[in-house]
Amino acid sequence: MDIRFQNARILTMEEPLQLLPGELWVRDGKIEYAGPAKTPDKPFDRTIDAAGDILMPGFKNAHTHSPMTFLRSLADDLPLDKWLNEQVFPMEAKLTPADIGPLTRLAILEYLTSGITAAFDMYMFPKEVAETCAEAGFRVVLCGSVNDFSSSPEELGRDHETYNHFGPLVSHQLGFHAEYTTSEGRLREIAALSQKFGAPVYTHNAETKSEVEGCLERHGMTPTQYFEKLHLLDFGGGFFHGVYLTPDDIELCAKRHIAVVANPASNAKLASGIAPLTEMLASGVTLGLGTDGPASNNCLDMFREMFLATALQKLRLSDAAALDALDVLRMATVGSAQAMGLSDCARLTPGSEADVVRLSMHAPNMQPENHILKNIVYSGSKLNVRMTMVRGKILYEDGEFFIGADPEEVYAQANAIVAQKRS
Amino acid sequence: MDIRFQNARILTMEEPLQLLPGELWVRDGKIEYAGPAKTPDKPFDRTIDAAGDILMPGFKNAHTHSPMTFLRSLADDLPLDKWLNEQVFPMEAKLTPADIGPLTRLAILEYLTSGITAAFDMYMFPKEVAETCAEAGFRVVLCGSVNDFSSSPEELGRDHETYNHFGPLVSHQLGFHAEYTTSEGRLREIAALSQKFGAPVYTHNAETKSEVEGCLERHGMTPTQYFEKLHLLDFGGGFFHGVYLTPDDIELCAKRHIAVVANPASNAKLASGIAPLTEMLASGVTLGLGTDGPASNNCLDMFREMFLATALQKLRLSDAAALDALDVLRMATVGSAQAMGLSDCARLTPGSEADVVRLSMHAPNMQPENHILKNIVYSGSKLNVRMTMVRGKILYEDGEFFIGADPEEVYAQANAIVAQKRS
Repeated sequence: MDIRFQNARILTMEEPLQLLPGELWVRDGKIEYAGPAKTPDKPFDRTIDAAGDILMPGFKNAHTHSPMTFLRSLADDLPLDKWLNEQVFPMEAKLTPADIGPLTRLAILEYLTSGITAAFDMYMFPKEVAETCAEAGFRVVLCGSVNDFSSSPEELGRDHETYNHFGPLVSHQLGFHAEYTTSEGRLREIAALSQKFGAPVYTHNAETKSEVEGCLERHGMTPTQYFEKLHLLDFGGGFFHGVYLTPDDIELCAKRHIAVVANPASNAKLASGIAPLTEMLASGVTLGLGTDGPASNNCLDMFREMFLATALQKLRLSDAAALDALDVLRMATVGSAQAMGLSDCARLTPGSEADVVRLSMHAPNMQPENHILKNIVYSGSKLNVRMTMVRGKILYEDGEFFIGADPEEVYAQANAIVAQKRS
Repeated sequence: MDIRFQNARILTMEEPLQLLPGELWVRDGKIEYAGPAKTPDKPFDRTIDAAGDILMPGFKNAHTHSPMTFLRSLADDLPLDKWLNEQVFPMEAKLTPADIGPLTRLAILEYLTSGITAAFDMYMFPKEVAETCAEAGFRVVLCGSVNDFSSSPEELGRDHETYNHFGPLVSHQLGFHAEYTTSEGRLREIAALSQKFGAPVYTHNAETKSEVEGCLERHGMTPTQYFEKLHLLDFGGGFFHGVYLTPDDIELCAKRHIAVVANPASNAKLASGIAPLTEMLASGVTLGLGTDGPASNNCLDMFREMFLATALQKLRLSDAAALDALDVLRMATVGSAQAMGLSDCARLTPGSEADVVRLSMHAPNMQPENHILKNIVYSGSKLNVRMTMVRGKILYEDGEFFIGADPEEVYAQANAIVAQKRS
């Protein structure tokens, strides 16, 4: 469906960031035009009066584990090791491929309410995640999660070819779980895959202090330095969390074009720490933003992440001027997209994929209009998301979902899966 | 209007906290019944099928400055002193009584979207705040804000009598701005008022490190000890922020029944610090939760505050088990109410004032149902608020407001006020 939005305030995410009053035209799933009001040559299927609302690129959730919705609020307020070993791992061991569809669909519903149009999804069962996202019309970049206990470098290589030729909404990046869960042999095989495909590599890195200390004991160097030594970083890539990256690590990230994806809510809730985002930004590191999985967060809300990204920097540095809200907006859109290897869906420019959200200005938390872009970061909420569109298709509008599944049925299926695993 | 809710899950906030399936009856502005389904003796004006949604007491915003909506996003990402001296104070100096109605109304609209049914409001112009809240049907406890530059102990005493006899939705507590803005002479006069009325006293305390250090220099003791010496704490009261309360201060709070109202979002955004809530709770101090004003937060969202209250304790103590979510629920409801001196609107028990919110369970972020009460704190959002009722009257339902004012007009008025002050 080709759609013409009128009376919008458009944030294309082109620099310098600003809101342009005018129209946005979506044709054949792409942005045809963004600019001042004018008369189109060809008709549209639908015209939407945006009534002064914001149209901007959808948020890109650059680190998540979507199917973990089933663990939400299962075991909070526990020390990290108890949470992982006594709750998360035993429950995950019971998952079957048939569970993945409903659990992923539940995450997609929530993403859409938060204006998220793409997820960088690291989990087992890539086939089911890919199929579910494609069916829903939701954009996903699958991230390999090889470790010593699941998947393998061979499977990762096959997945990389399969899911980069799966369809327009699906792509795949090489990845492994973490240094502390993956043997050097496997890491060398993954490095060989990176050389073979000329492809970047992604992993959890420096999420906790003990993880980095463990690597220092095992290898006499930080995980980042170790990955560099193994040639895992030769084609760029990304680190999830990055809470305990050292200044040298950060320099290396900048040099090797390694993006860092921040997960401030998860790192706070699990008491892991606050990532040095300000220093990374100053060093020229590309920063993305992610929710992490719903087991650790527990919600999938980019507004919460955006506020936390800047508020926690301010706390960490005792500086109310740290990490400007506009930098946070960049992280949640173009930065995340770059981290995920998505090149053409993070700006509302002609020819780009039409991944668009509409944020209501007709809401008390967005008023008055002193600085609308800062309102998005500091006072914006899911309540402002009136529409979420992926590749030109509206998947969420005014509280209704259009992903080809009944939300009530998704909730029932998720609860049935939980009941079965807990029994 | 008398309302019967059916098929609800009721969180009365009576201990132990649990969700009771059943009905809630609201008659003459009060809770008539909360319990298993049964047949009423008398008819109701309206019956609402809650469809399994949560009914719970409204959140009490125990520290705010409502009319400061006009400063939202005016000057973020600035050092605290520049923000206050170059932006906030000059703009506030231009406010007139006529501005207060629209600005307060804007805050009320936002409170309602977040399930907030009462605010503890510290600002100049108590008359206009009281009138606006009463007209809107919103509950307010006015807090005196005497300092050396505005109001006076005499005015405070008159206000205390006036606004405790103003009407059923309005009450008043003695209060002053802070130690560093109020002379000892004025503080002694306020202590005398406290003795006269047998009334508690409220103030900002230990929001920043420099504020406490300043008091130590001026008086050789912490603000808390200084207030104790001046007999300001003889009848209890409350401290807003409390970030830098010492262990001795905390002991004194427990002994003198001084509540502490946490403002985690504001303290983070202004880089002030993280209050030792865990230690206060362990010492038996009553804890409330507040948004602070929209100039420093910048939003008025108790879901954000609840998540931050616990997440920041976890970060501060490097302990994922710190400050259980249920304690946060208590802070945001019964704790805040106690801090505000509200005795009968924080529990859904027969005879209590019907200040009720309905939170949708038919939303992806509230599913699955592993632990619904933790969902409220960890993944709940404004999007879940289907209804906000104060004193039996529905003020917000399914996105519509019923406060006797057109929201669009409120937004226009707020923008006009901003434009005038900035010119």
